[in-house]
Amino acid sequence: MVFIDRLIAGIKKYDNPSCVGLDPRIDYIPPSIREKAARDYGRGFAAAAEAVTVFNKKLIDALCDIVPAVKLQLACYEMYGIEGMRAFASTCAYAKSKDMLVIADGKRNDIGSTAEAYSAAYLGKVILDGSESPVFDADALTVNPYPGYDGVRPFIDDCSASGKGIFILVKTSNKSSGQLQDIVTQDGRHLYEKVAELVDEWGTYVMGCSGYSSIGAVVGATYPQQAAVLRKIMKKAYILVPGYGAQGGTAKDAAKSFNEDGLGAIVNASRSIMCAWKSGKWADKYGGDGFDQAARDEAVRMRDDIRSAIESRKEAG
Amino acid sequence: MVFIDRLIAGIKKYDNPSCVGLDPRIDYIPPSIREKAARDYGRGFAAAAEAVTVFNKKLIDALCDIVPAVKLQLACYEMYGIEGMRAFASTCAYAKSKDMLVIADGKRNDIGSTAEAYSAAYLGKVILDGSESPVFDADALTVNPYPGYDGVRPFIDDCSASGKGIFILVKTSNKSSGQLQDIVTQDGRHLYEKVAELVDEWGTYVMGCSGYSSIGAVVGATYPQQAAVLRKIMKKAYILVPGYGAQGGTAKDAAKSFNEDGLGAIVNASRSIMCAWKSGKWADKYGGDGFDQAARDEAVRMRDDIRSAIESRKEAG
Repeated sequence: MVFIDRLIAGIKKYDNPSCVGLDPRIDYIPPSIREKAARDYGRGFAAAAEAVTVFNKKLIDALCDIVPAVKLQLACYEMYGIEGMRAFASTCAYAKSKDMLVIADGKRNDIGSTAEAYSAAYLGKVILDGSESPVFDADALTVNPYPGYDGVRPFIDDCSASGKGIFILVKTSNKSSGQLQDIVTQDGRHLYEKVAELVDEWGTYVMGCSGYSSIGAVVGATYPQQAAVLRKIMKKAYILVPGYGAQGGTAKDAAKSFNEDGLGAIVNASRSIMCAWKSGKWADKYGGDGFDQAARDEAVRMRDDIRSAIESRKEAG
Repeated sequence: MVFIDRLIAGIKKYDNPSCVGLDPRIDYIPPSIREKAARDYGRGFAAAAEAVTVFNKKLIDALCDIVPAVKLQLACYEMYGIEGMRAFASTCAYAKSKDMLVIADGKRNDIGSTAEAYSAAYLGKVILDGSESPVFDADALTVNPYPGYDGVRPFIDDCSASGKGIFILVKTSNKSSGQLQDIVTQDGRHLYEKVAELVDEWGTYVMGCSGYSSIGAVVGATYPQQAAVLRKIMKKAYILVPGYGAQGGTAKDAAKSFNEDGLGAIVNASRSIMCAWKSGKWADKYGGDGFDQAARDEAVRMRDDIRSAIESRKEAG
């Protein structure tokens, strides 16, 4: 089954159009896990990576029967070096073993032959000694469109060949995203609209039975007006929506990225779920050792928050 | 000393404004190295990574007294998984031990807090247990500008704090680079010119004693007309020029990225040097086992080719 149909099946199964970002920082991890990792692995990168892996696996255990997908921010693993990449690989494999889809958030990009190497690393396979081996083998990868089509094509090829997906950056959630993305072009449209038109065009190459494409887009919840415009340009693209929660985007903002069928987008939250155990609401109830239960409660709260925003929007027509 | 002054010192020392791309593919590596790695490490990623490391180190030995810098294409290491990242780390460390500057070609990009993690991984330091540790510790990193300033600022901060550099994608060397980069904006200029203006502005934050900035740009040798325009917009930026050789850019094309002082750019070649041992000219002389000497001869040929193109341009005024 192509990626987008698998994603939609997961979203429908749990009636939950959200994913959890596993973007671990060492201070997100409760002291008990960090202390055990330090006892077993000493100090330094190996202990940090072990703590990250244990933390992630417990979060996955707590979330895998209510959330369809995890999004792993590669930078948060690369910052712990080779050991960090080992934690990334272990987390990917563990999430998949629990039937969660894995979105590798790497925002990779390069010219054609190099894009092929990135795509092999995260989506496809590498040929060694005449046989093909998957490498990190995520289900989907975020991709930066700046090099244009020949930098994106290798990823699209692996979406077709291996049933994978990509989410192309269109409008990012950060404050200065407008500096380039909002530039007005000669024909009076914004750069992000031009990128969205390309995503819409490229999306036709890898359509699922669901009517959606495995070539999706990233549009931040922090830009709801732009999201409403982009939703119309890329009717068949699934939109990955960062920026909900800690970054300030609300469920109502995120709802702008959904279609009228209640599908078309998946909303990500990272910090608010990973760090739920630290927040006033859950800290008293669970403490650090109940971080996984706190994450589950926050994931349920988020799911219901987004569900009702989608419903309200439907009712408002 | 800030990055750009170290780079210029290296370029002047060897009178060589070029760098060698260590972007290894398994079929670039002579059979004798691959076979030994397979004997020692079996088949699979560990053997591939060992072959890459041995190949790279011998190339560095052969080039370190004539070439100031190496550029490592991260995708080519990530495609061999965790073992590939180990080869990346070993190659970085070895090149630095031989006084070569290391440019990590990762085209990384993300919103602010995540860009901080990427910058810590490749340029800066990570704080663990209260002490700071470098991770991959390259001298410079290539960066994609699509998120705008708050995605670039963390890298600029590490350029200031740790004497590192970045090269921001402005006009990439691939065929479809124009699809977004050549879009004409409302004021009649191209997107790549807008990006160049930002590079010029951001460059003022990390100036070297040389008069050049540690915030450089990437402009492909395959677009000489655009390079001439961009050179004027970003007078203080060092331009990293890919696309020479195998991609079709000539020394005359690459020379458009230099200033009249004979400085201002560094031209990269990867495949033509790594695979020199396979080319008609050097294959007969050296064969596979002399791949390092073939690379050295080709690096000298390239150096002289670029030197004369810069001289001709100076003479032509």
